Amino acid sequence: MRIVVLAGGIGGARFLRGLKKAAPDAAITVIGNTGDDIHLFGLKVCPDLDTVMYTLGGGINEEQGWGRADETFKVKEELAAYGVGPGWFGLGDRDFATHIVRTQMLAAGYPLSAVTEALCERWQPGVRLIPMSDDRVETHVGIELDGERKAVHFQEYWVRLRASVDAHAIVPVGAEQAKPAPGVLEAIAEADVVLFPPSNPVVSVGTILAVPGIREAIAEAGVPVVGLSPIVGDAPVRGMADKVLAAVGVETTAAAVAEHYGSGLLDGWLVDTVDASAVERVESAGIRCRAIPLLMTDEDATTAMAREALALAEEVRA
Amino acid sequence: MRIVVLAGGIGGARFLRGLKKAAPDAAITVIGNTGDDIHLFGLKVCPDLDTVMYTLGGGINEEQGWGRADETFKVKEELAAYGVGPGWFGLGDRDFATHIVRTQMLAAGYPLSAVTEALCERWQPGVRLIPMSDDRVETHVGIELDGERKAVHFQEYWVRLRASVDAHAIVPVGAEQAKPAPGVLEAIAEADVVLFPPSNPVVSVGTILAVPGIREAIAEAGVPVVGLSPIVGDAPVRGMADKVLAAVGVETTAAAVAEHYGSGLLDGWLVDTVDASAVERVESAGIRCRAIPLLMTDEDATTAMAREALALAEEVRA
Repeated sequence: MRIVVLAGGIGGARFLRGLKKAAPDAAITVIGNTGDDIHLFGLKVCPDLDTVMYTLGGGINEEQGWGRADETFKVKEELAAYGVGPGWFGLGDRDFATHIVRTQMLAAGYPLSAVTEALCERWQPGVRLIPMSDDRVETHVGIELDGERKAVHFQEYWVRLRASVDAHAIVPVGAEQAKPAPGVLEAIAEADVVLFPPSNPVVSVGTILAVPGIREAIAEAGVPVVGLSPIVGDAPVRGMADKVLAAVGVETTAAAVAEHYGSGLLDGWLVDTVDASAVERVESAGIRCRAIPLLMTDEDATTAMAREALALAEEVRA
Repeated sequence: MRIVVLAGGIGGARFLRGLKKAAPDAAITVIGNTGDDIHLFGLKVCPDLDTVMYTLGGGINEEQGWGRADETFKVKEELAAYGVGPGWFGLGDRDFATHIVRTQMLAAGYPLSAVTEALCERWQPGVRLIPMSDDRVETHVGIELDGERKAVHFQEYWVRLRASVDAHAIVPVGAEQAKPAPGVLEAIAEADVVLFPPSNPVVSVGTILAVPGIREAIAEAGVPVVGLSPIVGDAPVRGMADKVLAAVGVETTAAAVAEHYGSGLLDGWLVDTVDASAVERVESAGIRCRAIPLLMTDEDATTAMAREALALAEEVRA
């Protein structure tokens, strides 16, 4: 079975770990979000790709969900001593090496997809990880700060400001001109199932879908497309998805997120048991819906979620 | 008093520490060798400038003589795990931060001299440190390896091969087209004394003198030019200067190095007491010479050497 997964960072990475257990023989292609990529200290940092790579490759800081295990922060400490910022982005020494290798390869002319493949040779994530695009796409967030309207990089909004102010717009700058990376459209066309893990529907899955051609390819693939709600009990399971959902006019409920994807794209949707009452509303929107436990508390729970997603896909197919 | 010092790495840096004690009120300008600069992992590394900066700024690994104190090697370990080399160049985590800041500033368009000034704002070395040139100069060494004649970067010869094979040529690639960095010729023109510390006469001081205009400016400054022999008892005090001296046809003796600089450039020369017999030969070449203890065993010994150099300069002037 060939499975394509559109993944953001932590939620996507953890779901993928369960999916690998649920479908050990499947060929899994992960299309990774690069909209939250950022240049820091002259280095190209790809937080979502790295979170997937480290999580599946066994190098992740489990507790934190991002960054490397057994990490130290000497480089960051020294950069601060030079007065060079930003200090709010937590790059560890081990993590720096990844960005140094990536930046060096990009400067040598390799596209991000080739660089990602090279980095994965070390990590052996057990999936094929492809960035959504080799072109630069950067999600900017429109906010009002100190009475002034301005746009900030997604990471500045998310990490520095911790989404503490309202967002009034989410703009994946460069997405309109971006082309899907080599292999993305082919993987979708050959897929048996497409899954949306409980990643952020706006700044993770939404950004991937904003690259022209990807949404269309999924809609036209003619295979089951099943998603898992990142919203449980009217609140994001993790992160601050409510802020960015509000910015695009979507309420923070499992049902509203399904409707936001729409029945033209989504065939099946899993909500948490606490949101069982949403099933009817989602189904009336033309999307098959089931309520199951959706908290990725451990690998077994996550594996069960992945199994349910695949089961729902088969139900849709039949 | 305004003193100009042409400095390489360890020898130059340690001498400068003594000079600052010997002449606490002097305005010292250090013209640093950049011929052993190297690009590693996409980063610009300036070993000699950094050794001077770290040594005078209190950040040096004292035992080793180069690199940072309290250093760790996580980044290097990770780069090796990615299969990215070279592994023979020992960049520590703290040191990496310096190269990251430098590379980022260079990419932003600042010349190396401005970058060095910015880095020194943190380290406060107590001297004005200027690279010999903002232009790229790279010392290459012609060797015969496995029966094949080839040219390797100086660092590859020095660090990787540990000068274990004979060098038949030393070429400061790019020197002929290089211009002295802003401030270099001005500092020389305004100097009261010019000193050559016991740095390598070929690949350190020699490379600086290979930048068109610098040798001429020193010769024409009309002030005492005094050097200290890096050769004691017919052997380099440190490093493998004999290998590169042989490559340029100079014997490894204190007298031969003085003659190599020549009386057109050098007015005074200090040799070690074990080389007292060389005094006559050097003086007959038209260079005032004294024999004093020349081993920089501790700061007091080094300060005494600097005092003797300044005293010889005054003797020459009178």
